[in-house]
Amino acid sequence: MTAHRIAMLGTGLIGDFYTATLHRGRNRDRVELVYSRSEERGAAFRERWDVPRSTTSLEAACSDPDIDTVIIGLPNDMHVEAVRLAAENGKHVLCTKPLGRTAAEAKEMLDIVEHHGVFAGYLEDLVYTPKTLAAVKSVQEGALGDILWVRSRETHPGPHSAWFWDENRAGGGAIVDLGCHCIEICRNFIGKDNRPVEVFCWKDTLVHPITAEDHAVALIKFESGAIGQFEVSWAFRGGMDLRDEVSGTEGTIWLNHFLRTGFDMFTTGVGEGYVAEKAESDSGWLFPVGDEINELGYVDMFVDMFDSIDNGTTPQETFYDGYVVNAIMDACFASSDSGRWEPVELVDWRGGSTPRISRQAESFEGHPVIKREILPDGRSKVLYQHSESGEVMEQVTS
Amino acid sequence: MTAHRIAMLGTGLIGDFYTATLHRGRNRDRVELVYSRSEERGAAFRERWDVPRSTTSLEAACSDPDIDTVIIGLPNDMHVEAVRLAAENGKHVLCTKPLGRTAAEAKEMLDIVEHHGVFAGYLEDLVYTPKTLAAVKSVQEGALGDILWVRSRETHPGPHSAWFWDENRAGGGAIVDLGCHCIEICRNFIGKDNRPVEVFCWKDTLVHPITAEDHAVALIKFESGAIGQFEVSWAFRGGMDLRDEVSGTEGTIWLNHFLRTGFDMFTTGVGEGYVAEKAESDSGWLFPVGDEINELGYVDMFVDMFDSIDNGTTPQETFYDGYVVNAIMDACFASSDSGRWEPVELVDWRGGSTPRISRQAESFEGHPVIKREILPDGRSKVLYQHSESGEVMEQVTS
Amino acid sequence: MTAHRIAMLGTGLIGDFYTATLHRGRNRDRVELVYSRSEERGAAFRERWDVPRSTTSLEAACSDPDIDTVIIGLPNDMHVEAVRLAAENGKHVLCTKPLGRTAAEAKEMLDIVEHHGVFAGYLEDLVYTPKTLAAVKSVQEGALGDILWVRSRETHPGPHSAWFWDENRAGGGAIVDLGCHCIEICRNFIGKDNRPVEVFCWKDTLVHPITAEDHAVALIKFESGAIGQFEVSWAFRGGMDLRDEVSGTEGTIWLNHFLRTGFDMFTTGVGEGYVAEKAESDSGWLFPVGDEINELGYVDMFVDMFDSIDNGTTPQETFYDGYVVNAIMDACFASSDSGRWEPVELVDWRGGSTPRISRQAESFEGHPVIKREILPDGRSKVLYQHSESGEVMEQVTS
Amino acid sequence: MTAHRIAMLGTGLIGDFYTATLHRGRNRDRVELVYSRSEERGAAFRERWDVPRSTTSLEAACSDPDIDTVIIGLPNDMHVEAVRLAAENGKHVLCTKPLGRTAAEAKEMLDIVEHHGVFAGYLEDLVYTPKTLAAVKSVQEGALGDILWVRSRETHPGPHSAWFWDENRAGGGAIVDLGCHCIEICRNFIGKDNRPVEVFCWKDTLVHPITAEDHAVALIKFESGAIGQFEVSWAFRGGMDLRDEVSGTEGTIWLNHFLRTGFDMFTTGVGEGYVAEKAESDSGWLFPVGDEINELGYVDMFVDMFDSIDNGTTPQETFYDGYVVNAIMDACFASSDSGRWEPVELVDWRGGSTPRISRQAESFEGHPVIKREILPDGRSKVLYQHSESGEVMEQVTS
Repeated sequence: MTAHRIAMLGTGLIGDFYTATLHRGRNRDRVELVYSRSEERGAAFRERWDVPRSTTSLEAACSDPDIDTVIIGLPNDMHVEAVRLAAENGKHVLCTKPLGRTAAEAKEMLDIVEHHGVFAGYLEDLVYTPKTLAAVKSVQEGALGDILWVRSRETHPGPHSAWFWDENRAGGGAIVDLGCHCIEICRNFIGKDNRPVEVFCWKDTLVHPITAEDHAVALIKFESGAIGQFEVSWAFRGGMDLRDEVSGTEGTIWLNHFLRTGFDMFTTGVGEGYVAEKAESDSGWLFPVGDEINELGYVDMFVDMFDSIDNGTTPQETFYDGYVVNAIMDACFASSDSGRWEPVELVDWRGGSTPRISRQAESFEGHPVIKREILPDGRSKVLYQHSESGEVMEQVTS
Repeated sequence: MTAHRIAMLGTGLIGDFYTATLHRGRNRDRVELVYSRSEERGAAFRERWDVPRSTTSLEAACSDPDIDTVIIGLPNDMHVEAVRLAAENGKHVLCTKPLGRTAAEAKEMLDIVEHHGVFAGYLEDLVYTPKTLAAVKSVQEGALGDILWVRSRETHPGPHSAWFWDENRAGGGAIVDLGCHCIEICRNFIGKDNRPVEVFCWKDTLVHPITAEDHAVALIKFESGAIGQFEVSWAFRGGMDLRDEVSGTEGTIWLNHFLRTGFDMFTTGVGEGYVAEKAESDSGWLFPVGDEINELGYVDMFVDMFDSIDNGTTPQETFYDGYVVNAIMDACFASSDSGRWEPVELVDWRGGSTPRISRQAESFEGHPVIKREILPDGRSKVLYQHSESGEVMEQVTS
Repeated sequence: MTAHRIAMLGTGLIGDFYTATLHRGRNRDRVELVYSRSEERGAAFRERWDVPRSTTSLEAACSDPDIDTVIIGLPNDMHVEAVRLAAENGKHVLCTKPLGRTAAEAKEMLDIVEHHGVFAGYLEDLVYTPKTLAAVKSVQEGALGDILWVRSRETHPGPHSAWFWDENRAGGGAIVDLGCHCIEICRNFIGKDNRPVEVFCWKDTLVHPITAEDHAVALIKFESGAIGQFEVSWAFRGGMDLRDEVSGTEGTIWLNHFLRTGFDMFTTGVGEGYVAEKAESDSGWLFPVGDEINELGYVDMFVDMFDSIDNGTTPQETFYDGYVVNAIMDACFASSDSGRWEPVELVDWRGGSTPRISRQAESFEGHPVIKREILPDGRSKVLYQHSESGEVMEQVTS
Repeated sequence: MTAHRIAMLGTGLIGDFYTATLHRGRNRDRVELVYSRSEERGAAFRERWDVPRSTTSLEAACSDPDIDTVIIGLPNDMHVEAVRLAAENGKHVLCTKPLGRTAAEAKEMLDIVEHHGVFAGYLEDLVYTPKTLAAVKSVQEGALGDILWVRSRETHPGPHSAWFWDENRAGGGAIVDLGCHCIEICRNFIGKDNRPVEVFCWKDTLVHPITAEDHAVALIKFESGAIGQFEVSWAFRGGMDLRDEVSGTEGTIWLNHFLRTGFDMFTTGVGEGYVAEKAESDSGWLFPVGDEINELGYVDMFVDMFDSIDNGTTPQETFYDGYVVNAIMDACFASSDSGRWEPVELVDWRGGSTPRISRQAESFEGHPVIKREILPDGRSKVLYQHSESGEVMEQVTS
């Protein structure tokens, strides 16, 4: 029974979520060291999570001999340096999302960890939510047939830390903060082997006095013809809206991760307390989640990461995935500038080639069948395209 | 108490829905005459709906002296002729959706009815659903603040009649059949005075052996900056998915018209019977609607039309609205061809000029405020952009 | 095409709902005269609903020669007198719920209308909601097999008018106000021919400073063995909770009439306006209904009543039904006093005799089968009771 | 970091669920030994869950020196013996639900573990579901004010193993199998200190050819006046229905643990696989849960148990709780026999005395206020009971 000794880089909301996950329940692995630029925040974190040591030196945190795993929960502009230090010191590296601010940065990090041969996991928690894992499994087993379209929506009233709103540090706005989740959710449903070919994206700054986008919608066209669609906003009212929809030739999946999960509460507001991340009110009808950390995927994500380290296997989400996500986001920005479809530039494509979704039509008296239906009176109707005239015709049979 | 005497043109599914609506309850108005090219179908319709007379002459139906109102429920390629005949005979004209196959056709019809000075109503039922009417009213009263984004989704397993699948007769595929609903829903929420400026559209034929599109997604940019989004499909599995979502600066609305309306039924399939339009099965978990005709907006639509006729007022949906919808659909086809945003060509714009959604920021010590939040410990945090450095900063106050 | 001329007795909330229903849309029938003890309230009602005349004489209202139908929307203690006057004058009588304060009163009214041979309808709107009508139809067609259990719940923060809270005038508290709805919903699903045999009821006054009950739960045992269950409260927080659940040997139905109908709205409260009957707030997450009058059954109820008058048929809800409901409520009060099952006293039972729900077991090698299931590995398992030893045994078959 | 070495008694569905929970993720504790009467089932279990050893001797399993914790997952009639053996050997004892077949048996087990001074946890998983834990916390913090009524419903198509259907071995039918969960859920919401005073219960055998009940509804009256209500059935169609509802003076909670949790899937049935415990079909609309083991409470339950052992604290669910549950079930059987309220016999009551839910009325001009409301026109209305006349009156104020 192995147990890991972790250095946590960063003491913001994500560092809290990660550590809360690792230190809860009967989990074996522990955060032993925390890095913060601020001694004060490091000390507060130590006390908050019962962590033995803190440091203000990124290098010290990444080279500590008592540590085997480095978890990066830093602002986006610090990822490259942190990955480099951790990899040079031979540590397992787990990096929060997005991997880089651009595909170039992500590729640099990918090259670093591969050069040093260290384990590198991409902490994309939202593909690890219990519902997503179960849904992806059903899709992989074929319950939905060929996947045609996936929508992933993440909208809320905006992030908590200042650096998210600073385009230079973050690399963008809502696309970089939220779109990265949605893109990887789409890829998990559509298939990671299915190459993202081109992207159309609209973005705008509708509400906030910032230069980065606070709204975006994008379409990602995959090689099979399937479409991934994401919608992100930093100005949604009503809480955090995390929904995914998947349509295939044989079925449909709808996931709601946060606002409608079978837990409805009305309160006049007499009682007090934390309801959920990014909830907007504490009275009236509220929609708490049972166990936020679990519903957001953190538990299963770390299980996958540490089990993969222990077993020498590849986790569900790797730095390569992070790189593909960044390449798609680069195309989003290019498209919103140009106003047209822009190609996804992948200098390093490791997936396969995926055939077009097939439209093999059943045949009716030699003509391709468009649709069959049962009429209210029990008879059958067939709609077909006459193979010579091209006309659409219908015939009712008993 | 006035009562209208109606000629129904067409005996397809839509003619059935219209007549079922008019002849039910304690309604005053009656279908007195039905037109079908086929004598047999006309006779069957007469019997089905207790209609006194039928004819196979379009002209006879439109000029019958005993009739004051003509309702057009014909395939799209027959609308112009029917509108012309009815208008020339001075009848009130109510035409099903879409008005034309193109904006040019729609404009022609608009000109005809205006030239003849007859009442002309556009039978866009889905903006008349009880939920949509109530939601639009709330939006107009300001409950959601400035509207930022509207999504309207209509997907199902495909239409019942052959002509829908024939691009020439219909003028297109799923966009023309379903997108026209979604566009008008977006306009009702975003404001009919708010000019649709440009459109981006993806369409594809993913599943069926047809030339028309069976899937499309489009973004419609309005003058205020608001975005209308539609998603249509003729290959959805699970029934008829009719959902709308609206986001504004002060709120959110989610509507589900068909598949989740508070009526859940599980049955092993012992009993029998019609469940709902385009339902896919009659056992397992089913989601019937209570009163399909009402939920789909037919009741309130005809009330608005006949009350408008009687009161000499303008109904909620006019031929002009039909024309705008066609112009937007034209832009959808242009965009899906060109792969870029395409302008909405409106030779006749009767709306106003709408200012950009304002981003008036509150001020904190002279700097624009990005966000205020309450921390879990009760203190307040303000995120603001420093007006000189441009840096995003935060300050916590008690 | 007949049209009715109506005298409305009472100007409270229910009179408003009734008249709003009758005067909307393209409806033919009109309220021509309103009765109120107060001249002022009568005048306000005339203006509110465009009613030509008002009177403060109950007798005048019931004997007006220009009126063919009297609708009783008065406090419960005035029903008998109003029914008598209307019947003596040969008017059609429609009476709100509950019919009487006791079965004795209800029986008196039933006898009066039968003696005078006038049409008498029981205005139990909640069995006419579109969902209930559709669900009852599915049940009658057998979609759920034999009905085993029905739950009907109506709870809200309490009625608006003073007389409801006055036990003497109302005849009780939440049972009489809300339970009467629930009982009739149970009867519609379980079958009106199925005799209600005995009742167990708990009631208590948990919250309000009144003598009548503000909470109650009851079980109604029907002759077939089926159980009807109602839950009523005048202290529910969160709006008006109207839900029904039905379980049968072959299926299940869940209805939610008010709080979850596919219309979700979040608003910070900027806009204004009436949300829905007994809603508790106008900001945060709200759950409006699209068309309250229709969702509460008023539209279909009056259609049934006036169509029945015109066609000489029996409406779905009659004074006899009102009498049975009162008899069941009498048993509820008896049971909550005695703390035990109490019989439903029906001096006049017009239904049939219903056999016990059958437990005809399939046979496995001569033993009655308890259950068959499919195992995860695809094999079948049969659980049966050994007919000699009485022991429960299982056998797995491939 | 402590880790426990566990003997699992029993290889049925519950043993599988327990072991799946313990052996997953990064959990420290392990099942080292399994007991089954059948060598074959023991061997299969060893292989299924990677357990080192098995035995067919209950005594050997309970006295194994390498084991510190015994988990009892046996049929109900074997609990006493297993508890005795484990306690005599000084092991920590965790016993599945219900604790006993009767309160007498439960009391015997309670006495045994207290006599031997061993840790004893009651494995009532459903009060540990993430939603229930969060909801109970909100209730304890006062978000719902005084609790008035709790409904807990557990219904499904019946258990999988033969012994459940055998009244002698199980101690009853659906009450003993499912009601025990519901009772403890009610107690958690209403307060464990609040004494259950009396019970009314209806039970019947409506569907299956068995002597035990397959349906029951019960009301449990607590000292404060609050009512717990449970509904259980072994004949529900549609899957496993696990819902709880809580009403208080200041709010409402609705929990749905299984059939509506934000995961909707429609499939034509092309794919394969396990959907969820007691699901009824594998095509059409399905409602899987994301992570069944977690949603059913097993994860948090074992965390509480082992943390309590390690920290020397009392777990949320103890043998004493199991005893109270059995006492309430005894009263259920007594009541369904007598047809009246029956007292809950608790020879050993360790809770407190709870005052009646208070009805302190606000005062209006010296009269107790029944209700205040805001009228649609913005004015306020107060309903009050005149302190002298007793009449209910209303006054509107601006």
